[in-house]
Amino acid sequence: MEITKFSIPEIIFGRGALKYAGLCAKRLGAEKPMVVSDPGLHECGWVSHLLEVLAGEGLEWCYFEDVVSNPRDTQVAHGALFYAEHKADVIIALGGGSPMDAAKGIAVVASNGGSIQDYEGANRIHRPLPPMVFLPSTAGSGSDISQFAIITDTRRRLKMTIVSRTLVPNISIIDPNVLTTKPRYLVLAAAVDALAHAIESYVSIIASPFTELQSLKAIEMISIHLPRAAQEPTLEILESLSIASTAAGMAFSNASLGADHALAHSLGGMFDILHGEVHSVLLPAVMRFNMDAALPKMAQIGKILIGKNLRSERQTAQAGIEALEHLFASLGMKQCLRDLVPEPSHLPQLCRMAAQDACLLTNPRPAKWDDLLAICEEAW
Amino acid sequence: MEITKFSIPEIIFGRGALKYAGLCAKRLGAEKPMVVSDPGLHECGWVSHLLEVLAGEGLEWCYFEDVVSNPRDTQVAHGALFYAEHKADVIIALGGGSPMDAAKGIAVVASNGGSIQDYEGANRIHRPLPPMVFLPSTAGSGSDISQFAIITDTRRRLKMTIVSRTLVPNISIIDPNVLTTKPRYLVLAAAVDALAHAIESYVSIIASPFTELQSLKAIEMISIHLPRAAQEPTLEILESLSIASTAAGMAFSNASLGADHALAHSLGGMFDILHGEVHSVLLPAVMRFNMDAALPKMAQIGKILIGKNLRSERQTAQAGIEALEHLFASLGMKQCLRDLVPEPSHLPQLCRMAAQDACLLTNPRPAKWDDLLAICEEAW
Repeated sequence: MEITKFSIPEIIFGRGALKYAGLCAKRLGAEKPMVVSDPGLHECGWVSHLLEVLAGEGLEWCYFEDVVSNPRDTQVAHGALFYAEHKADVIIALGGGSPMDAAKGIAVVASNGGSIQDYEGANRIHRPLPPMVFLPSTAGSGSDISQFAIITDTRRRLKMTIVSRTLVPNISIIDPNVLTTKPRYLVLAAAVDALAHAIESYVSIIASPFTELQSLKAIEMISIHLPRAAQEPTLEILESLSIASTAAGMAFSNASLGADHALAHSLGGMFDILHGEVHSVLLPAVMRFNMDAALPKMAQIGKILIGKNLRSERQTAQAGIEALEHLFASLGMKQCLRDLVPEPSHLPQLCRMAAQDACLLTNPRPAKWDDLLAICEEAW
Repeated sequence: MEITKFSIPEIIFGRGALKYAGLCAKRLGAEKPMVVSDPGLHECGWVSHLLEVLAGEGLEWCYFEDVVSNPRDTQVAHGALFYAEHKADVIIALGGGSPMDAAKGIAVVASNGGSIQDYEGANRIHRPLPPMVFLPSTAGSGSDISQFAIITDTRRRLKMTIVSRTLVPNISIIDPNVLTTKPRYLVLAAAVDALAHAIESYVSIIASPFTELQSLKAIEMISIHLPRAAQEPTLEILESLSIASTAAGMAFSNASLGADHALAHSLGGMFDILHGEVHSVLLPAVMRFNMDAALPKMAQIGKILIGKNLRSERQTAQAGIEALEHLFASLGMKQCLRDLVPEPSHLPQLCRMAAQDACLLTNPRPAKWDDLLAICEEAW
């Protein structure tokens, strides 16, 4: 086995865990934390609740919510200025992948200077970041666990993948209560994102026994609880999806991802699509592309998805992919790339950008831009 | 589900990973690390190898090896003085549970003052510790992963259990090569300790989905690789046992242990017995005592150990315990408490001390000192 690493934040998990946010921030030295969230969470009352918790611990705070879905380089730059102006000392993010990734970007620029573009790629952050306490509001992005941040470069219209051990937050506080105010469609899209994290990390060329265990657990739990969530996302189901998303986060943070996420980032950068919406279109086609390069593992995934082994590994793997397609269809998720991309003429540029994404490096089957194009054409 | 936590160090795992010790120490701010190890590892050449790695990174170092099996309060006190005298800044431990626990004790006293007795029990360490990089030389203690340190109080002749989040090392570097020079009996005893960690943490009253996953993985891997190690502990088997021990460490650090470890600490304190030797005697009796309080989980353990489900949970659980007894016998491990304790007259005192151990708080069936006595009499 190659030398491998496994790094995750300290995790505090459970209903009501948000109440520890102030104590955790203080433990990391906070006197004036900067809270990063978005207007949606503000409206649901979670931001006020969090700010009360912080005030209850005697903390001054400053609040920043200039964050949109697919957070932008310009917002990161504003946030870093805001952090400096308010002399903040710890960053607390409350939200889905967008506020959390924005908060990571802000942490990088606030402490390392320059613009977020300077840190695109792997291991380019050299100075320590402010301590980070993250509270996810979806069970999907895994940003509260992972060493990834995805920020849109508005000029180039692409999503930059930034990977660094220092992007792992210090503490992740996962409170399933916070998920109860999310619209059902967002709950499902987030869970599909987590499922893609689990599947891609499992077949990654740098998967380890530590990450494989988490990937398989996540696939198993999501395959059980995602259809239930489509019926009625009870607190119990949201809790299970949160456990699964956390496990998937531990896996992909340390084993990275593959062609599905490389394409998803490219798509999201060009067309500002909800990230969780693209996997139902792309993941099955990517799994077919990867099949021969990772057959025993693809069969293992298939076995979990269909509940049994068929006669051959190939049959089990194929049946798993079909089961996934049925699941996505039954959830009302998008099935064809043409539902997301206005014209097929965009595909070559989209694939050339995806071929530059750091996630592609760990795909089990090497893929060039024209391989990605074939995947997109299959999914069209 | 109750609010739960899951905290582990950054892990670097693999053959040859020791070479990263200097880089890791520097990342934590080291200029003059203190290395804690023992004469056995010095003799095998591992200490020199580590010191060369540190020198190669331009680090000055100081070296402390006044550590015995079941490390003592007096050694911790000497080590803390040594740390201060040498103006060390990071603690690097290389060894089995004894050097690693001694290093934790030294870190506590060097930074928090007083004597190690002041920190006995849970959450009594209030000031930050020096950064810690640990390199385990056995696949068993899990001290490189856990928030536990066990130090012998030489005056009271008992092992103190010290539990604190701050005792989780910053970085654990697990290099299976380092295990190749251990005598076979110590390899087996360490693996049995890891198995006890996995089983006790799985049935702990504060087990969580995060710890249960790791416990089950560890039980499965140890049940496969422990008998193989008894034949010939190849590097591949040692690597698998290291993965299992790491998983068990993640589990017990966060879910704690139970009556077996409470008694093991008491026994080790009174009679200076090798810690890994006591579980083959105590664990089956403790599992029988716990059976009704955790029947579905005991059946799950049984299913892994015997490879199938029997007609009832109880039958599966019982067959699992018997399989464990056969395994221990086949390994030549001790079977009876009388092989470890000179006279039965010691048992009441031994059990009264064990009843005070922090590990007993999470045993699935509440146990008073006389319950422990009954367990010891069964195991006599």
